[in-house]
Amino acid sequence: MTYNYPLGEIAAYLNAELRGDPELRVNGLNTLQNAEEGQLAFLSNPKYSKYLSGTHAAAVILSEKIAIDYAGDCLVVADPYLAYALISGWFDRDEPRDSFVHPSVTVDPSAKIADKVYLGPNVVVEAGVIIASGCCIESNTVIGARSEIGENSHISSNVTIYHDVTIGHSARVHSGVVIGADGFGFAPREAGGWQKIHQLGGVTIGDNVEVGACTTIDRGALDDTLIGNGVILDNHVQIAHNAVVGDNTAMAAYSGLAGSAIVGRNCILAGDVAIVGHVSVCDNVMFTARTLVTKSVAEPGSYSSGATPLMKTVDWRKNSVRIGQLDDIARRLKKLEE
Amino acid sequence: MTYNYPLGEIAAYLNAELRGDPELRVNGLNTLQNAEEGQLAFLSNPKYSKYLSGTHAAAVILSEKIAIDYAGDCLVVADPYLAYALISGWFDRDEPRDSFVHPSVTVDPSAKIADKVYLGPNVVVEAGVIIASGCCIESNTVIGARSEIGENSHISSNVTIYHDVTIGHSARVHSGVVIGADGFGFAPREAGGWQKIHQLGGVTIGDNVEVGACTTIDRGALDDTLIGNGVILDNHVQIAHNAVVGDNTAMAAYSGLAGSAIVGRNCILAGDVAIVGHVSVCDNVMFTARTLVTKSVAEPGSYSSGATPLMKTVDWRKNSVRIGQLDDIARRLKKLEE
Amino acid sequence: MTYNYPLGEIAAYLNAELRGDPELRVNGLNTLQNAEEGQLAFLSNPKYSKYLSGTHAAAVILSEKIAIDYAGDCLVVADPYLAYALISGWFDRDEPRDSFVHPSVTVDPSAKIADKVYLGPNVVVEAGVIIASGCCIESNTVIGARSEIGENSHISSNVTIYHDVTIGHSARVHSGVVIGADGFGFAPREAGGWQKIHQLGGVTIGDNVEVGACTTIDRGALDDTLIGNGVILDNHVQIAHNAVVGDNTAMAAYSGLAGSAIVGRNCILAGDVAIVGHVSVCDNVMFTARTLVTKSVAEPGSYSSGATPLMKTVDWRKNSVRIGQLDDIARRLKKLEE
Repeated sequence: MTYNYPLGEIAAYLNAELRGDPELRVNGLNTLQNAEEGQLAFLSNPKYSKYLSGTHAAAVILSEKIAIDYAGDCLVVADPYLAYALISGWFDRDEPRDSFVHPSVTVDPSAKIADKVYLGPNVVVEAGVIIASGCCIESNTVIGARSEIGENSHISSNVTIYHDVTIGHSARVHSGVVIGADGFGFAPREAGGWQKIHQLGGVTIGDNVEVGACTTIDRGALDDTLIGNGVILDNHVQIAHNAVVGDNTAMAAYSGLAGSAIVGRNCILAGDVAIVGHVSVCDNVMFTARTLVTKSVAEPGSYSSGATPLMKTVDWRKNSVRIGQLDDIARRLKKLEE
Repeated sequence: MTYNYPLGEIAAYLNAELRGDPELRVNGLNTLQNAEEGQLAFLSNPKYSKYLSGTHAAAVILSEKIAIDYAGDCLVVADPYLAYALISGWFDRDEPRDSFVHPSVTVDPSAKIADKVYLGPNVVVEAGVIIASGCCIESNTVIGARSEIGENSHISSNVTIYHDVTIGHSARVHSGVVIGADGFGFAPREAGGWQKIHQLGGVTIGDNVEVGACTTIDRGALDDTLIGNGVILDNHVQIAHNAVVGDNTAMAAYSGLAGSAIVGRNCILAGDVAIVGHVSVCDNVMFTARTLVTKSVAEPGSYSSGATPLMKTVDWRKNSVRIGQLDDIARRLKKLEE
Repeated sequence: MTYNYPLGEIAAYLNAELRGDPELRVNGLNTLQNAEEGQLAFLSNPKYSKYLSGTHAAAVILSEKIAIDYAGDCLVVADPYLAYALISGWFDRDEPRDSFVHPSVTVDPSAKIADKVYLGPNVVVEAGVIIASGCCIESNTVIGARSEIGENSHISSNVTIYHDVTIGHSARVHSGVVIGADGFGFAPREAGGWQKIHQLGGVTIGDNVEVGACTTIDRGALDDTLIGNGVILDNHVQIAHNAVVGDNTAMAAYSGLAGSAIVGRNCILAGDVAIVGHVSVCDNVMFTARTLVTKSVAEPGSYSSGATPLMKTVDWRKNSVRIGQLDDIARRLKKLEE
């Protein structure tokens, strides 16, 4: 667990232009202002330029424009933030686990577990499950019957994957996640109360997907709920039955899709965005925080609702009560104009 | 795991009028547009009528009104959606588990486990627990001391039920659920900071209740938190200490009740509805998505707040800033009128 | 599990003035209106004074002002609510567990487990973990590599603590909590999609912290995410990477901090308050329910946004549509005034 790389090796990995000593070794990654001796720093946001001259970093990842005025060892790249992202894994203390099957696991004999798989303590793998090579399934996680996990996927502890769920390769699923629980489907009974609709579909998740802690993805009512490739979901996200999330779409914490909502590719849902059921959103749409999407969106762009200005509570009370008078205000204004 | 039923048997179960061949066998359930040969489909929403003529379904559940014009095999019922719900369980791949106690369980000797119970791998059952006949408790679930689970209840994997929780018969509790954690009760200390109030009540849950993934139901401060019969809770729901949820009330994802909030029977809380503490809502009330209920509601009907129109972000900014000027606008309008 | 204390002993613990029989024994704690014979009740909110004369409580905790007119046995204190909080633990059925290590645990040989620790069934403790004396780690909980849990901390069942997390003494962490999952950090790739930023920081949590069920606290990107002393977090709270929560701050259910948001000491976030990224809030700030904090707050006080009046849905629709016309309304009003 010592991280110590020559700058030249890092430059090669990042396709960076190295200005300085390729034998210089760096042992950590940090911001300009917090970097200690021996660490590699990066500068992407211009507002942090002021920290460049005083940094203790051994070397800095930066852009050509900034590098011109910097005399220290540096790696010049087109996108320093992306370069920082790419190299970050080299310094991760959460090192990959060696392949190993803990003796406390419960694995059904019909499950197919590839070589080079880690199954942590108390992992439960049910009948017909397929776990591909390179997977890491951590402690106390449960994989339901006939579910499939693609190569090099990493499922953290205390995750529940129900039956008939398919996850592509290189997934990262965090603790507390529940994939494949029943969608919220009930038919009203004539005499009152609810008749449960068994949820017969499954969940199909693409490759390179990240699922944040305590996020839930429900199984479909008849067809599968669908998550595309490269989708990234933050914590406490809710994907209801038969929702569809397009490739590379990002959903921040508490964002949710109601039943059969469809979101296109490359969309961004900021925190606490909710999309109501059966609504369709095209590719390349951004929703700002707290937006409630009550109708379909067919044109790319940024959309909003709900987020109102922050003010002192005493002022908010005076103003918000007027919202209940708005229709009246509008009518009175019209009358005055006439 | 092959599903293959004669139409006559299904008709009898649904009290449906069978028009066609009672010996015709169906092996799956689907929508009109996706049904494959041999499958049973249903038509409840008139907007899908256009798919009826082209469906590959072997038979269709429909209403008398539609059946008149349909020549294929069909089951005629008063409410096709309810009929679909009722028959859906016949095609569920998540088949009931045989009664079995996995050798890895930890069951306190004072617990009373009925016959015909399934306890999955690593299940923990503490002192004084009572689990009735027909229950299925899946892997890695924990049942705290003196809690009781009624007949035929199905608790999924990785659920936590704290001590002194009572759940009625035929419950369906999904993964990640936490029932009986401490309510959020603290008294402010004179010198700053918070003194915890131990939560001495429990949780009492009626019969036929569904609890969605990652939903939390806190224990009461002194008395129990109460969930009625037939209540259905979606994912990420929060029920605070001493809240009361009336029979057959439905709460969609992210809906929450603050402490001691009381909701009547047959209410519907759409997604992300929040009811503040100590507020009381009568029977038969509907709240639309995102509503914040800040006062008691004594009259049945549909209520709203919060959900504002979706628009381009550039337009939202112009309009939302005016919300902070609303009181001023109203006063100026009044002045003009005078 | 019988609770039976002489009034004199309780008075001494609470520094209360005892008016009545010090040998009188009480066996439970309750409200004035629900107290049964032999129970201790309390009166803090004046609106419940009406229940005082008819209470069946054996004794009552109350203030000097009320005690003057009360003839029964009572304990007189300055703050009856705080006194109730302080004594509540004496009647808690969830008694501390004896120190014990269940044979089903998986503990890495390099972990340091103090004496007087309870490790429940299926607990997993990874390499380099330090668990201090008096800790109780309940069933199926996982503690990741090199994490440290301070003295007398109580971690409930099915909790996941990732690697390199530090928790102070006397913590109370409820089920379903996830501490130290990856922050939601990704750099956009030029060709589309997201490059994961490995989250190299940890989480540092102070002393006397309470963490509610299904709450998530993400690890930092480079530095640690920080939670101060005495912080209380309700259920479904989200703390993103590198957020900072000051001492004694309280966050109610669904409240969330986006990345690098900083909240001062002694703040109160009511339910569903969201603070956007990189925003800073000073000490002693209160946010009312549903507030979205989009900018820094430098002055103590109460702030709001978002919560609009509850009304019938038919009225809400008429009024909310006007929000989309507000800028136009304001301009037309100005024109009329001119």
